[in-house]
Amino acid sequence: MMTQFTDVSEFQNAFIAAAGQDAASRQGASQRNAQLTKPPGALGRLEDLAIWYAGWRGTDRPRIAAPQVIVFAGNHGVAAQGVSAFPPEVTVQMVANFRAGGAAINQLAKLFGAQISVHALDLDRPTEDFTTAPAMDKAELLAALQVGWDAVDPASDVLITGEMGIGNTTPAAAMCCALWGGDIAGWVGRGTGVDDAGLARKLDAVTKGLALHQGRDPMEVLRCLGGREIAAMTGAIARARLLRIPVILDGFICCAAASVLAKLLPTGLDHCVAGHVSAETAHPALLHHLGQEPLLSLGLRLGEGSGAALALGVLQGAIACHSGMATFAEAGVAAG
Amino acid sequence: MMTQFTDVSEFQNAFIAAAGQDAASRQGASQRNAQLTKPPGALGRLEDLAIWYAGWRGTDRPRIAAPQVIVFAGNHGVAAQGVSAFPPEVTVQMVANFRAGGAAINQLAKLFGAQISVHALDLDRPTEDFTTAPAMDKAELLAALQVGWDAVDPASDVLITGEMGIGNTTPAAAMCCALWGGDIAGWVGRGTGVDDAGLARKLDAVTKGLALHQGRDPMEVLRCLGGREIAAMTGAIARARLLRIPVILDGFICCAAASVLAKLLPTGLDHCVAGHVSAETAHPALLHHLGQEPLLSLGLRLGEGSGAALALGVLQGAIACHSGMATFAEAGVAAG
Repeated sequence: MMTQFTDVSEFQNAFIAAAGQDAASRQGASQRNAQLTKPPGALGRLEDLAIWYAGWRGTDRPRIAAPQVIVFAGNHGVAAQGVSAFPPEVTVQMVANFRAGGAAINQLAKLFGAQISVHALDLDRPTEDFTTAPAMDKAELLAALQVGWDAVDPASDVLITGEMGIGNTTPAAAMCCALWGGDIAGWVGRGTGVDDAGLARKLDAVTKGLALHQGRDPMEVLRCLGGREIAAMTGAIARARLLRIPVILDGFICCAAASVLAKLLPTGLDHCVAGHVSAETAHPALLHHLGQEPLLSLGLRLGEGSGAALALGVLQGAIACHSGMATFAEAGVAAG
Repeated sequence: MMTQFTDVSEFQNAFIAAAGQDAASRQGASQRNAQLTKPPGALGRLEDLAIWYAGWRGTDRPRIAAPQVIVFAGNHGVAAQGVSAFPPEVTVQMVANFRAGGAAINQLAKLFGAQISVHALDLDRPTEDFTTAPAMDKAELLAALQVGWDAVDPASDVLITGEMGIGNTTPAAAMCCALWGGDIAGWVGRGTGVDDAGLARKLDAVTKGLALHQGRDPMEVLRCLGGREIAAMTGAIARARLLRIPVILDGFICCAAASVLAKLLPTGLDHCVAGHVSAETAHPALLHHLGQEPLLSLGLRLGEGSGAALALGVLQGAIACHSGMATFAEAGVAAG
């Protein structure tokens, strides 16, 4: 299915039309879970994860054989406002590092057996500075959504979307405030470690951006305040739902991209689980808005999909137990 | 080094004499961590884990190549007091399940590449019921410690000790109350899921046991209130320290076994990290006494080493990043 979108509304419609979980598989997995050689509920959240995953994969005894990590990279006009601790050229340098296998996400993808692909979106052509203009025009937004949509391998069985883009906690904060409301300062954190002066510039930039772009339509928020790698993540997470590929959400920026889908459809992230809660200030609040309980809380704040990739091990553990354990009858164990 | 203990004091002395971390390796790992292609601190707790692990392994760039899971099983006289939701014969049935590869721990060990061994300790000869007599005599305690000590593979590089023993949250609760003090009821939880009447019997049994065995010497607490699989875990965790093999602690019973070592030597668990906090009522308090922050909190309460095995994936992730990532210089990335 190589859909080529000619308009953002086509993307929206395709996403909204996606089918949900398979109720019979979910039910079958729940029945299997009750027969496994352990006290009822003793695997805690692993049991919920396995049943959820089974429902999306359409089988009561699923396997994880082909996890996919996609890292999207973009550059941001708003970086010129001095909102990051790192210079913008680091985006392209880190893309080279991803391709050479030297970044954190490479190590985690390899450890957990995930394929990894890297999509650099027009790094030599940053988005517009959203304090003075919409970050993207409609064609740019559509192109970025399409990159994300096309990047998902239909043969994969778990998706992790990561990102790299110097300055991108600033558009993510602006998007979150536009989509979820609340105090602007509450959404603005230190990202990769900006100092107090940088934090003040960041707050100022987000405040200006929100004043300039007041629409609350989710796709317009993404276009005016977002960025290419963020839109690509939105596109990829949407596609995964159509393909019934469960998604492990990463940190603040990934969840900002996912928020667009949650606003388009209240059940739009039912195929997602939060891999972790990051150290970025507003990530706990964002997860709360998304109704997501994170699997891990280890103080990560790197992006790249790293927190989600670490949580892949937990999901793999849940599925290994669910699908590999003996039942009471098979093992000849008294069921209590 | 096949030490054959002839007395419990020999065991204590061997444990207390163990060397600690290698400061130079720890320092070298800390320096390497600062040069990796990520913002400072962006991998959060993974960075601390890698530096800690490096210090124990004596190299600034360690690998995890040989994790070991050992499951110890024992039966408990106090089970006759009706303290568990499962009948005592389940212990031997589950040992068969471990050996056939059908339990949760088998799936997790396989997933994360750990070797697994199972040691059943005199299952046909339960310990004495501690409400009426010491659980073990001195020879029995020594034999169980020796089983644990000998079970550790010196070639392994991470150790997980798990257990199986119907009724064993009862001795664990009694030991914790004896070693750490506090209200008896606060240490008594539902284990595998005992009902209200069972919980009352459990509280009664622990109260009687503590009244009968009032000494606070750690090894005597283990002997009078513990059990064979618990003592074997104590022995294995002690041996790991001598061998500089880091240990991932599992749930309530594992931490009760480890508490004996913490009481023998305040730094006695420096080679250990808490894999998870379980759903057993008193596990959070026990981790607090041990000064341990758990890596995972997913509501598990199975034992077998399952929570620790799940956390092995996190530790492997930390080491993969630390030892596999490129430095800023290697990758040509601006360090901010």
